[in-house]
Amino acid sequence: MLETTIAEIAPLDEPAMTAARQLQARLTKPAGSLGALEELSVRLAGLAGACPPPLPTPAAVAIFAGDHGVHAQRVTPWPQEVTAQMVGNFLAGGAVVNAFARQAGASVTVVDVGVANPLPTPEDGPAGPGGAAGAGGAGGVAGPGGPGDVPRLVSAVVRRGTRDMTVAAALTRDEARAAVEVGIRTAGELVDAGAGILLTGDMGIANTTPAAALIAAFTGVDAAEATGRGTGVDDPTYQHKIEVVRAALRRHHPDPADPLGVLAAVGGLEHAALTGLLLGAAARRVPVLLDGVIAVAAALAAVAFAPDAVGAMIAGHRSAEPGATVALRRLDLTPLIDLGLRLGEGTGALLALPVVTGAVRVLHEVATFDSAGVVEK
Amino acid sequence: MLETTIAEIAPLDEPAMTAARQLQARLTKPAGSLGALEELSVRLAGLAGACPPPLPTPAAVAIFAGDHGVHAQRVTPWPQEVTAQMVGNFLAGGAVVNAFARQAGASVTVVDVGVANPLPTPEDGPAGPGGAAGAGGAGGVAGPGGPGDVPRLVSAVVRRGTRDMTVAAALTRDEARAAVEVGIRTAGELVDAGAGILLTGDMGIANTTPAAALIAAFTGVDAAEATGRGTGVDDPTYQHKIEVVRAALRRHHPDPADPLGVLAAVGGLEHAALTGLLLGAAARRVPVLLDGVIAVAAALAAVAFAPDAVGAMIAGHRSAEPGATVALRRLDLTPLIDLGLRLGEGTGALLALPVVTGAVRVLHEVATFDSAGVVEK
Repeated sequence: MLETTIAEIAPLDEPAMTAARQLQARLTKPAGSLGALEELSVRLAGLAGACPPPLPTPAAVAIFAGDHGVHAQRVTPWPQEVTAQMVGNFLAGGAVVNAFARQAGASVTVVDVGVANPLPTPEDGPAGPGGAAGAGGAGGVAGPGGPGDVPRLVSAVVRRGTRDMTVAAALTRDEARAAVEVGIRTAGELVDAGAGILLTGDMGIANTTPAAALIAAFTGVDAAEATGRGTGVDDPTYQHKIEVVRAALRRHHPDPADPLGVLAAVGGLEHAALTGLLLGAAARRVPVLLDGVIAVAAALAAVAFAPDAVGAMIAGHRSAEPGATVALRRLDLTPLIDLGLRLGEGTGALLALPVVTGAVRVLHEVATFDSAGVVEK
Repeated sequence: MLETTIAEIAPLDEPAMTAARQLQARLTKPAGSLGALEELSVRLAGLAGACPPPLPTPAAVAIFAGDHGVHAQRVTPWPQEVTAQMVGNFLAGGAVVNAFARQAGASVTVVDVGVANPLPTPEDGPAGPGGAAGAGGAGGVAGPGGPGDVPRLVSAVVRRGTRDMTVAAALTRDEARAAVEVGIRTAGELVDAGAGILLTGDMGIANTTPAAALIAAFTGVDAAEATGRGTGVDDPTYQHKIEVVRAALRRHHPDPADPLGVLAAVGGLEHAALTGLLLGAAARRVPVLLDGVIAVAAALAAVAFAPDAVGAMIAGHRSAEPGATVALRRLDLTPLIDLGLRLGEGTGALLALPVVTGAVRVLHEVATFDSAGVVEK
């Protein structure tokens, strides 16, 4: 499945891009005055092979959840069971990603690709969404209705957490391939169900550590440049985290020309699955809005498999993690939002979604100088 | 009316801000992981005097339209009648601001505060919205329904265009005051009609020239630093535009401590009306999302009248105009979006609206660690 997906990924369509540039020039606004939105609309026309491209709706967030053997190296103060607890929070609609998805009218699909601890059943939870809303909120009902209100769980466990990459390969090649194929299948299912755009999401305590290792492996930067503070670790933990990334890279010497090998050596299950989601979306020529550092690490793997996959990618935001900026530079993608977010879950991608929709909407709805009777300069 | 409005403007409410900070710390996310959205939610709590503050909805865009005597100095290649034609385009729903307002569910009110040429009547227009949508769009029907679909025109003409500020004061003090009061009245009417947030919009061929003069007058920077290329003028026109701004400032020597005098000398009718909108919103403790360089020039005038008015302001985006960055620095506001836009109309503010709503929604809907049964680090 991986090889056939890669074979389907093709470059952007030049005639559609030319048509979009020509249409932009006829719309009732000064040439270039929509800045980055104009080039974004052109790229999406190239991806769709049509001008205007379809409005990117409905939107579907896919949150891949997994655990990490490297958690044993104390790279984060958060206990591993929080991964499972936060999956429960997503399913109950109480996390930030749920609030943003309700606002954007996006569906939320949580894919358990390898959570180590048992997921809470609905009865386990002491409270649903909106637990904080005592002073006036009405959690879970303020959204637009529709698909965003019913988060869905897909069980696609490859293994219940990776191995500790400082003592062994995190995954076997077969496990890494299986995780990538979970992502490809997820993309296919969401597109078959009608999604016009996919948004990347992730959950996995300690998952910024393998993300840093992946970014260092694919770009060649030093571990210190690729590693950040994740949820906000203190100075000693941060220095230790850099050393953990460095030790894993020294142990495995991953070859950036062998993306499956890199994912197996120092990746995570959610990183591998996201790689598959990106490849699957590119093969189906549906845009994917990237969230933060986990997503851009996966994007580096995806372009190592298929360079043209970048044509389907839109950088939603610039994560506060330094590795995200390293990866975005290598991908030559400029993020739409830059607000110092470092939450993950898909939150940064969801904030950027209206910008993407707006960029396409302009091509659909704005009058031309001729049609509106406006004189040109 | 101006003096009573100024007298009603008060600082942000500290107890509500403290409550918002404490609530942010209990929500199921790492502390600080929502970056700029957390402080934004705190400011909005302070403005409302409540935690959580109300969701900023419904949203209302107020587009003030006016013409400029300084157009005679050839600071732009666009003919002056385009101001009236674009007002017609707004009312027909065919401009970018209409497309973005439909997407955001925002109402559009166009206030004619001084357009020089007759406004097109509905029969004059050769086409309604969506003239560009031959290849698949359905302009005007793709929105969410609701108020965004019926742009409204308010006639509040102070005079049909300003005087040329290089040969006379653009406005008398009484005219400037009348324009400010149009803005105050507009804010009051929109808030009385239920608006939870106001968005600034503007239309006026040549209006970046008085904006540059206002920014230079209020901040003290040189005309060259405050002046940009507007819709994209060529090098000779740009150099000439700087000299025009410099000549106007040299002629009038406006006193930044006398904002009405500055607006009269080198302002525009839409700049003065926006100043009033900002003061009116601050007095009513309703947030205002600033669009581009016209809005931030007006914001400098508003804080010169009432320093606490800044508490109601949110910088929607960073316009490509250099004067916008000068003004934002002086206002100590960080823009939410930075995508090289230079269109005006309210487009940049509308793109930022979901970020503002999302920041507040988090306080309403996200579960706490306790309520969700998630362990803290």
